[in-house]
Amino acid sequence: MRILIVNPNTTSSMTATIAAAAKGVAAEGTEITAVTSLMGPVSIEGYYDEVFAIPGMLAEIAKGEKAGAQAAIIACFDDTGLDAARALANIPVIGICEAAVATTAFIAQRFTVVTTMERSRLPIEHLVHRYGMSARAKVRAADISVLSLEDPSSNALERLRSEIAAAIREDRAEAIVLGCAGMADLAAKLSAEFGVPVVDGVTAAVKHAEGLITLGLKTAKRGAYAAPVDKPYLGMLDGFAPAAMLNI
Amino acid sequence: MRILIVNPNTTSSMTATIAAAAKGVAAEGTEITAVTSLMGPVSIEGYYDEVFAIPGMLAEIAKGEKAGAQAAIIACFDDTGLDAARALANIPVIGICEAAVATTAFIAQRFTVVTTMERSRLPIEHLVHRYGMSARAKVRAADISVLSLEDPSSNALERLRSEIAAAIREDRAEAIVLGCAGMADLAAKLSAEFGVPVVDGVTAAVKHAEGLITLGLKTAKRGAYAAPVDKPYLGMLDGFAPAAMLNI
Amino acid sequence: MRILIVNPNTTSSMTATIAAAAKGVAAEGTEITAVTSLMGPVSIEGYYDEVFAIPGMLAEIAKGEKAGAQAAIIACFDDTGLDAARALANIPVIGICEAAVATTAFIAQRFTVVTTMERSRLPIEHLVHRYGMSARAKVRAADISVLSLEDPSSNALERLRSEIAAAIREDRAEAIVLGCAGMADLAAKLSAEFGVPVVDGVTAAVKHAEGLITLGLKTAKRGAYAAPVDKPYLGMLDGFAPAAMLNI
Amino acid sequence: MRILIVNPNTTSSMTATIAAAAKGVAAEGTEITAVTSLMGPVSIEGYYDEVFAIPGMLAEIAKGEKAGAQAAIIACFDDTGLDAARALANIPVIGICEAAVATTAFIAQRFTVVTTMERSRLPIEHLVHRYGMSARAKVRAADISVLSLEDPSSNALERLRSEIAAAIREDRAEAIVLGCAGMADLAAKLSAEFGVPVVDGVTAAVKHAEGLITLGLKTAKRGAYAAPVDKPYLGMLDGFAPAAMLNI
Amino acid sequence: MRILIVNPNTTSSMTATIAAAAKGVAAEGTEITAVTSLMGPVSIEGYYDEVFAIPGMLAEIAKGEKAGAQAAIIACFDDTGLDAARALANIPVIGICEAAVATTAFIAQRFTVVTTMERSRLPIEHLVHRYGMSARAKVRAADISVLSLEDPSSNALERLRSEIAAAIREDRAEAIVLGCAGMADLAAKLSAEFGVPVVDGVTAAVKHAEGLITLGLKTAKRGAYAAPVDKPYLGMLDGFAPAAMLNI
Amino acid sequence: MRILIVNPNTTSSMTATIAAAAKGVAAEGTEITAVTSLMGPVSIEGYYDEVFAIPGMLAEIAKGEKAGAQAAIIACFDDTGLDAARALANIPVIGICEAAVATTAFIAQRFTVVTTMERSRLPIEHLVHRYGMSARAKVRAADISVLSLEDPSSNALERLRSEIAAAIREDRAEAIVLGCAGMADLAAKLSAEFGVPVVDGVTAAVKHAEGLITLGLKTAKRGAYAAPVDKPYLGMLDGFAPAAMLNI
Repeated sequence: MRILIVNPNTTSSMTATIAAAAKGVAAEGTEITAVTSLMGPVSIEGYYDEVFAIPGMLAEIAKGEKAGAQAAIIACFDDTGLDAARALANIPVIGICEAAVATTAFIAQRFTVVTTMERSRLPIEHLVHRYGMSARAKVRAADISVLSLEDPSSNALERLRSEIAAAIREDRAEAIVLGCAGMADLAAKLSAEFGVPVVDGVTAAVKHAEGLITLGLKTAKRGAYAAPVDKPYLGMLDGFAPAAMLNI
Repeated sequence: MRILIVNPNTTSSMTATIAAAAKGVAAEGTEITAVTSLMGPVSIEGYYDEVFAIPGMLAEIAKGEKAGAQAAIIACFDDTGLDAARALANIPVIGICEAAVATTAFIAQRFTVVTTMERSRLPIEHLVHRYGMSARAKVRAADISVLSLEDPSSNALERLRSEIAAAIREDRAEAIVLGCAGMADLAAKLSAEFGVPVVDGVTAAVKHAEGLITLGLKTAKRGAYAAPVDKPYLGMLDGFAPAAMLNI
Repeated sequence: MRILIVNPNTTSSMTATIAAAAKGVAAEGTEITAVTSLMGPVSIEGYYDEVFAIPGMLAEIAKGEKAGAQAAIIACFDDTGLDAARALANIPVIGICEAAVATTAFIAQRFTVVTTMERSRLPIEHLVHRYGMSARAKVRAADISVLSLEDPSSNALERLRSEIAAAIREDRAEAIVLGCAGMADLAAKLSAEFGVPVVDGVTAAVKHAEGLITLGLKTAKRGAYAAPVDKPYLGMLDGFAPAAMLNI
Repeated sequence: MRILIVNPNTTSSMTATIAAAAKGVAAEGTEITAVTSLMGPVSIEGYYDEVFAIPGMLAEIAKGEKAGAQAAIIACFDDTGLDAARALANIPVIGICEAAVATTAFIAQRFTVVTTMERSRLPIEHLVHRYGMSARAKVRAADISVLSLEDPSSNALERLRSEIAAAIREDRAEAIVLGCAGMADLAAKLSAEFGVPVVDGVTAAVKHAEGLITLGLKTAKRGAYAAPVDKPYLGMLDGFAPAAMLNI
Repeated sequence: MRILIVNPNTTSSMTATIAAAAKGVAAEGTEITAVTSLMGPVSIEGYYDEVFAIPGMLAEIAKGEKAGAQAAIIACFDDTGLDAARALANIPVIGICEAAVATTAFIAQRFTVVTTMERSRLPIEHLVHRYGMSARAKVRAADISVLSLEDPSSNALERLRSEIAAAIREDRAEAIVLGCAGMADLAAKLSAEFGVPVVDGVTAAVKHAEGLITLGLKTAKRGAYAAPVDKPYLGMLDGFAPAAMLNI
Repeated sequence: MRILIVNPNTTSSMTATIAAAAKGVAAEGTEITAVTSLMGPVSIEGYYDEVFAIPGMLAEIAKGEKAGAQAAIIACFDDTGLDAARALANIPVIGICEAAVATTAFIAQRFTVVTTMERSRLPIEHLVHRYGMSARAKVRAADISVLSLEDPSSNALERLRSEIAAAIREDRAEAIVLGCAGMADLAAKLSAEFGVPVVDGVTAAVKHAEGLITLGLKTAKRGAYAAPVDKPYLGMLDGFAPAAMLNI
């Protein structure tokens, strides 16, 4: 099985963290290809950053599908551009928020997502609602920047820990979801530390992707995810223009 | 990986259908053990039948966990006894309705579950609501009995087909979910026939079970799924009494 | 009028408390028959216990209906097996959570259910949601065991009081619902003490049962509560087997 | 027990129908006093009519409570002025829509309210939503005027029947709620005719009122139903002025 | 453009505050006519007061429409009688709660309404839910009487300030809505003080009214707001009787 | 007042239609500047097209705000990029779906949005849900392309008419919302033809924009719409790079 993971921010060190986590859970025979988008912000923090991350992400998905990927994962917890990617691709596309929430719902009735910045809290709450979990999941922000997760001198991990503790105590969370792709390496350690299941979206998405591939399921193409209409797109950068992506 | 599938009805020919479907999608190295409950109705059609199917199902899960199963699947689309099984077991337990719905949500925005009898329609609607999908999924009954699915002389398959066609036409369903474990062998054929993704819960659950095992995730034990309290249970049949199940 | 009350746990001292409360509010001419289930746990605390309590409860309802009961009450606040009992019986069947919530909704806009153990909190929240009251009612657990309510040396009553006080102060509860059949004797005393209406489900259910009998209303038998299909049930204990219950 | 029923429209022949139905279900020892409002429209059809019906209804409730009524029923299916009446009175006050819906929820999972005029459909839908039943109940209008129910030469009954038939066939209604106080005499006949439970709000409310009285429950007075503040009300008709009602 | 503002309480000093605020935002060429109802309570605090305020308010709207008003505003934050006014009038009618909430939704995702008395909190929560904003807006009461807003010796303003501070801190409110017509003069000052947008419903409603007039939009007259049926209304005060209002 | 309208598709003839409609309702003294995005698809039909339309739209809003615009309108019914624009800008930004829905809610309880292509139906349904109107509004697609609205030889207008007729008949719509910026010139004509209010989002948005400007309200900047963080964005086209937009 060939699974493409696109890091839609342009920070390749984060892609490395993501790739390592993904490979750690991939089945034997699954080939993980993790790519960094060539276009967009170095981290995705809020609605504005999402916009500029999506074209680069879509370009990678288009390239990956042509190269034989059988499923794609968007490795940003905002599920940036997920609907557009599903319209573009025939292979299944999975967002890591959606993946984490679906996985956690199998093992806990009430859980809390702990994300990075306050400005990401409401977009994630909106996703959680859309995925049907607003009565079961709360969203908290640890008030740390995405890239500080990679900086050992920051207090990011400490703040994350303190927010997890608050979720367990105040929200009566039965499980924790890590709300940022950059936390993909922390799940096992934090689970051991807090004594509750801790779910990371990247690894959850890899298993869902393998499942969909094995089951032979692809994105439904009648309705909201019908293939884009062939039409002119003006003023686009080469390579990021829809025509190139759609191979038309 | 060792996955236990419990058919909570007592019809072993249906277990055979389920086992075959499950083995067809299991990863290399996954061992599927499919067992038939020793107690309860020969088919589960509505709230009343569920009651008598649960103790036998729980007994199999208890036995299976002791024997080394790493995840369990309840192979009835009513997700019969799912909450109780999660309280009993430490390993993750998955219902096939929950599994099918979670899988389908990755590939379609609107879908329809087609189940057997009218009396199962509302219980499944209730599950779909609980899984957060009431705005995305409709439920239809083909008005056939569960066991007629195994009877080639019945018109069960025809009625199922006609209800799928109605779902696509009237509900604008982008994908179809088969709402009975006894339909586990039909997904691929019907998908080819109708040109939309058709999802079966048994196979979907196998992939979710493998995912949870690989991710090292178990049922959260603080909150609704805390282990049962040790206490007397009166008048129970040997083997189905909680004491035997809980090994106390 | 002849009303059957089934205590679905197997502790007859609790049945006595329930019966006394029920008789205290029954109309002249109403005959209350309170029975203790012969099978199942001595108290019902969470999803697992519910399973083993239901067959014994159903057996009593079947017996009671044959003996002339005109309505039945399931006297456990989890409304254990309510749907199955409605499918089994032709007479109306009432759960005490449903009864308490329906009664309280006539006299208060916002109220809080105070139950016993934390593990019962989410199942009751789920019921409250199902009964359409999730925007109006909160659920709290006093963190006491069911049977401690019968033990004067425990601090159960104190903890219950302290949780009621918190509900009034923090939830702005206008009324309190007692979330356990074992609290049926406490409503009047606690209401006087706290100066807000305090509703108990057993007594509320008796009045709803009398109402339904007088109005000539029985469980609707088209749809979710259609009578069980006649079919084999394997491995059941005599007396708890559906055949015995259904008189087939 | 002394129960006051206020017909908030000013048509006394309808009060007679209501009183007869109420007395037919009252317990021995219950005294039903049915009064016609002295002020307002001869029938209540839509939002505008409600306004002018409420002061007269409140005046009757104030008089009734002073005269010793222990519970009051507002006999219009729009539950006209229910919140204001609860703020005014200390005794419990019940609306017949709320009563009918609460009663029906004990015996059916899905049901349909059939009311008179199209303009009343949305207000009743709004009530049904407020009572937590929007997922379980539909509302239909038979397109008849309220007073035509009293005119044997009209085709009102025929249209009502035809709408009930449509509800059973198209909504899969398991039970029917009659959505007008003027239909209080029709429930038994229509139930026999259609073979499903048919619930009338007036009789349902009488039984709920008796229940609340026996349980010693009164309207909660902290929060939304706190007693009105003593203050000047200008330009009011004698007898309908709050001062007279509040006895201040 | 001619806009009528009806203060449905009978305190003309409050009408003066409302009129000043309205005129301060009216477009050039817009004529604001602010009238005080001739009938009803001097302030509207809870469900009971609303009842007696509506007939007088409707009378003013009927008079205003006949005199050429092109839109009407009901200047009480409970949106007192809004549905009835829409049934009565052909011109658009706007409630100030609805106006404030609609305006704030354009500039903030989460906001808090701060109203006067606790007894008004639940009615406003109910409105906010009806306007589709229950997931986005909270409602708080500053525990002050409506008329104290006009009394410089009271501590009303202080308590309002303290509740706004709490909303910003605890609810993470991005904007504040002032929940009483009597606060119409405070928005700019409080916005400057707290550094968040503060929205007043009177001024918001003026702008919506101008918009509807310019767009040529009037209340839809098929469905819930169909014109009242011509019928007798008994016992009404002259001038407040529907016949006078409807000009029949 | 200076209002910027951005047509986020790159078809300037549609901008002309939009500008004409906007100017037709602007107040005296309001200056409307309508611009066509320089980048992206010639029409926006579904999720994929939205992605490529947003950067060009944001660039225009950044330019417009620097040039003195006091409010901005995004003239595509998908409210394409609305959240990102609100994060970018300090001035208020309005989407035409949000504007149309808010306006219609003042004059009708139930209404239907009629849009162009089926693939836009679900995205708009999602918006309607987000704006709190899912219980009040339905969405229909006339199955026409966006640009066919400009082609007099197509049958687009006929199909639009036929879908409006169906909405009135089957949805009991009290009002109609036109679900595409390209229909901005049709509202008055269709309203006259069908006898119900017909609301267009462009003109509605102009009036809301004027309102917000007059009220001195700007986008709330604490929470979801906090200004973007200053950070590198790689690989962007000059002029569409965030740095240029943010003036940093």
